[in-house]
Amino acid sequence: MTIKVAIAGARGKMGKEAVHTVMENADMELVAALDYKDIGATLADTGLFPESFQVPVFTDLEELHGQHAPAVLVDLTTPEHVYAHTKQALQLGIRPVVGTTGFSTEELKELTELARNSELGCIIAPNFAVGAVLMMKFAEQAAKYLPDVEIIEMHHDQKLDAPSGTAMKTAHMMSEARTVHQQGHPNEKETLQGARGADYEGMRIHSVRLPGLVAHQQVLLGGEGQLLTLRHDSFNRGSFMSGVSLSIREVVKRKELVYGLEHIIG
Amino acid sequence: MTIKVAIAGARGKMGKEAVHTVMENADMELVAALDYKDIGATLADTGLFPESFQVPVFTDLEELHGQHAPAVLVDLTTPEHVYAHTKQALQLGIRPVVGTTGFSTEELKELTELARNSELGCIIAPNFAVGAVLMMKFAEQAAKYLPDVEIIEMHHDQKLDAPSGTAMKTAHMMSEARTVHQQGHPNEKETLQGARGADYEGMRIHSVRLPGLVAHQQVLLGGEGQLLTLRHDSFNRGSFMSGVSLSIREVVKRKELVYGLEHIIG
Amino acid sequence: MTIKVAIAGARGKMGKEAVHTVMENADMELVAALDYKDIGATLADTGLFPESFQVPVFTDLEELHGQHAPAVLVDLTTPEHVYAHTKQALQLGIRPVVGTTGFSTEELKELTELARNSELGCIIAPNFAVGAVLMMKFAEQAAKYLPDVEIIEMHHDQKLDAPSGTAMKTAHMMSEARTVHQQGHPNEKETLQGARGADYEGMRIHSVRLPGLVAHQQVLLGGEGQLLTLRHDSFNRGSFMSGVSLSIREVVKRKELVYGLEHIIG
Amino acid sequence: MTIKVAIAGARGKMGKEAVHTVMENADMELVAALDYKDIGATLADTGLFPESFQVPVFTDLEELHGQHAPAVLVDLTTPEHVYAHTKQALQLGIRPVVGTTGFSTEELKELTELARNSELGCIIAPNFAVGAVLMMKFAEQAAKYLPDVEIIEMHHDQKLDAPSGTAMKTAHMMSEARTVHQQGHPNEKETLQGARGADYEGMRIHSVRLPGLVAHQQVLLGGEGQLLTLRHDSFNRGSFMSGVSLSIREVVKRKELVYGLEHIIG
Repeated sequence: MTIKVAIAGARGKMGKEAVHTVMENADMELVAALDYKDIGATLADTGLFPESFQVPVFTDLEELHGQHAPAVLVDLTTPEHVYAHTKQALQLGIRPVVGTTGFSTEELKELTELARNSELGCIIAPNFAVGAVLMMKFAEQAAKYLPDVEIIEMHHDQKLDAPSGTAMKTAHMMSEARTVHQQGHPNEKETLQGARGADYEGMRIHSVRLPGLVAHQQVLLGGEGQLLTLRHDSFNRGSFMSGVSLSIREVVKRKELVYGLEHIIG
Repeated sequence: MTIKVAIAGARGKMGKEAVHTVMENADMELVAALDYKDIGATLADTGLFPESFQVPVFTDLEELHGQHAPAVLVDLTTPEHVYAHTKQALQLGIRPVVGTTGFSTEELKELTELARNSELGCIIAPNFAVGAVLMMKFAEQAAKYLPDVEIIEMHHDQKLDAPSGTAMKTAHMMSEARTVHQQGHPNEKETLQGARGADYEGMRIHSVRLPGLVAHQQVLLGGEGQLLTLRHDSFNRGSFMSGVSLSIREVVKRKELVYGLEHIIG
Repeated sequence: MTIKVAIAGARGKMGKEAVHTVMENADMELVAALDYKDIGATLADTGLFPESFQVPVFTDLEELHGQHAPAVLVDLTTPEHVYAHTKQALQLGIRPVVGTTGFSTEELKELTELARNSELGCIIAPNFAVGAVLMMKFAEQAAKYLPDVEIIEMHHDQKLDAPSGTAMKTAHMMSEARTVHQQGHPNEKETLQGARGADYEGMRIHSVRLPGLVAHQQVLLGGEGQLLTLRHDSFNRGSFMSGVSLSIREVVKRKELVYGLEHIIG
Repeated sequence: MTIKVAIAGARGKMGKEAVHTVMENADMELVAALDYKDIGATLADTGLFPESFQVPVFTDLEELHGQHAPAVLVDLTTPEHVYAHTKQALQLGIRPVVGTTGFSTEELKELTELARNSELGCIIAPNFAVGAVLMMKFAEQAAKYLPDVEIIEMHHDQKLDAPSGTAMKTAHMMSEARTVHQQGHPNEKETLQGARGADYEGMRIHSVRLPGLVAHQQVLLGGEGQLLTLRHDSFNRGSFMSGVSLSIREVVKRKELVYGLEHIIG
């Protein structure tokens, strides 16, 4: 049986990819799209998709649900809409798959209870790239055995913040698994300031920014006579689609809210 | 309380490293060495170790046990001795930690029963490099989500066989986790024979041999828009010592035979 | 002074990028486009470019030249048109920059003479990615000092042929610089056929094909105790634009035909 | 004809390797060793070499020269001896190959004149690893075309200073080839101090320190849609021997002092 899917945010960069992904998966059916404004009767009418994408567009989730009864709502809209969508979806009996962060602790708590009470799956994933999530999970596991760690994250030179969110999350996950200790020689000296990178509980993080790069990270774990490297390269937005598909298939089997792809993987 | 350790094969390359490792770990005590021939009263007398290594050497395990009662016997001898040592150790109540392969299925079965009946731990590890074992374990887990895989193993150019044993084992572990499928384009063509490497159930294995290299392997898992790379570099024999220490600490907690470090890690 | 540029093949994938590149470079001016059929009066009219791209389109190079006198013709069309374009351009006094291969030896000889006689620059480059050309050049230089070489090229799994053209060209360039010798152990044995890759005069080439990959190559040169790795990653078509810009700036300084970016670099 | 070689500093780590290297090269002959103190009549007598190494040891270079007339003196001693050795060698007509840094500008000037006046080759190389020198040379050449650069150097965690000398030298060489400019986004922000590494004229340098690592460096050059990586791994001291052999063969062809292997390579 195919899974009936609706998508909110179909016109965005991620949303467009998600539309194609759902259309291409044989075990899914894209029954409708949700938009905050009137963009035409079908996705094809927006001019952003092929003529064959005759998927009806709604501005009201209740109406959408009444006519098409999707099992899953994939929400790739902006933080300001996502909370309302998710809450309403759960109330209507639709399982949310959400790729936007930006929920408050309060909101997460409320949605968690709502999902549990209605026995509905709900997946909220700050990072949909399955490979990146695996890298973080493995880094956490490996840090128990090889507790000397450095992270090198590499992004295009238009990125504003350093270190990246993924690097910070990886360091955080590893810090809980390994014994905290200061790395490097106790008397080491930077002859040029910053050479040894940022310090996160004794682990070092290095941020490379170059034109041409997309989004890459390597976690290096050193031990006597050996080095273990866990590396993820994200070459384009398509890397997130594996996580979207996986989440759609998983959310229909769950009866509660799951925060983070790492809890449905491995 | 420190763990009393005896070592068989102390004069070999691996054995020498193991002696130093046990001497340096505060929670272990090297109480004796076992050798097949008379090499002097203590390890220091062999001229292979510092004067301070006043560790008595025995040619008979029973006598060694009678005088020093080790909890663990680390065996780094050759295949022809290792079975007899392991069996006798279990019979005497000593827990074996064994780094040599070469047991027959019969022998493994017998030792497994012997360990279970005497409720003694026994760890047999074809590969003691913790990082390599983690790489294999992670590769197996990741293959479920990213089933398109290629393995590149790289060794010094004096290695005779290709692919390496580690590459074959990795491929085998992954083949059980992923759905078998042929990779690459169905119509792909080698204009130079061998370019696409060796085929292991649809996965490809490439063996690089160059002077200067030691022992390295990377597992590449590709998905839409992304690549996950798991890499292990072994720079010298020291890489095995992390696994020896770990096994000594683990074997005293176990009550049966464990084959492969992957079962005591993660 | 800005360089007046015309582009043939503006509607193709590479052509579109080239249009943007020339528009963005302050020292160049895109004066016209050449197309084999009527596609509208200006590039903007094709709907493929922003409204501001009011660049006139011609179907006849002589007429284009008469009205706009470009110094350079960037030709990114298909092999069947490129010879005629290049010849006519040289006859009209326009310097060709050509990114398509597929000239016969005869044709190359004729164009070489034509360029020399008219003292006009002409650059024909099978590969416009400056980084890839540098990698090949460096590989050639390094092979003199570190003659043990393996090449690993990695592409998306829709690629039909293995090894890639770039890998073959790199191997060819290195084979002229190094002393030919068989690598690896003389008695090495493949327990799985193809593991050691393709053999090119004793050097080994390995072709990796995975979804997610774009176009990547590494050249590994091993020596006692060391490894030198030269790696190029091409993440998207933009990688070719550095070579297009460079060629436009160089071709106006030359007075003869140059085949291959490696002869204007380094 | 074989090249007659003498070695100073044969008992040191590098010196020992050099002795083996010269003994193994068919086109060289190790005629004598120079030591500052009496260590026995031959290298074999020191107990550090095989019995067959019947190479006479001298404490006086003039006497050594009188009896064995070496063409080349390989000097791997400490900075305090190396200047005197080199000067005396040149005065005696022996060509020095020197692997220790630590000459003053004055001393270098004097030795340069001495070599020129006596028309003798003299090679002084702060880094004998041919692969590392090639990496630096290529980095310098590539920076002209791909001026956005970051350097990641990786060493064992007992190293005291960061960045490494090789990283600083590489950055210096590149800074002369590329147009200085600040890299990264003008508004980029470190949320964790040091993440973006050390700044060397706009280029960034990152120093990784982990147990297990030996000496590794990668130079990353980014351009639109592409990345060029030049990497050198030094796995052990043997990496320097390629440069020692090369220098011995080159110094007999030269008639002046050369500072840096990069000037005899490529």
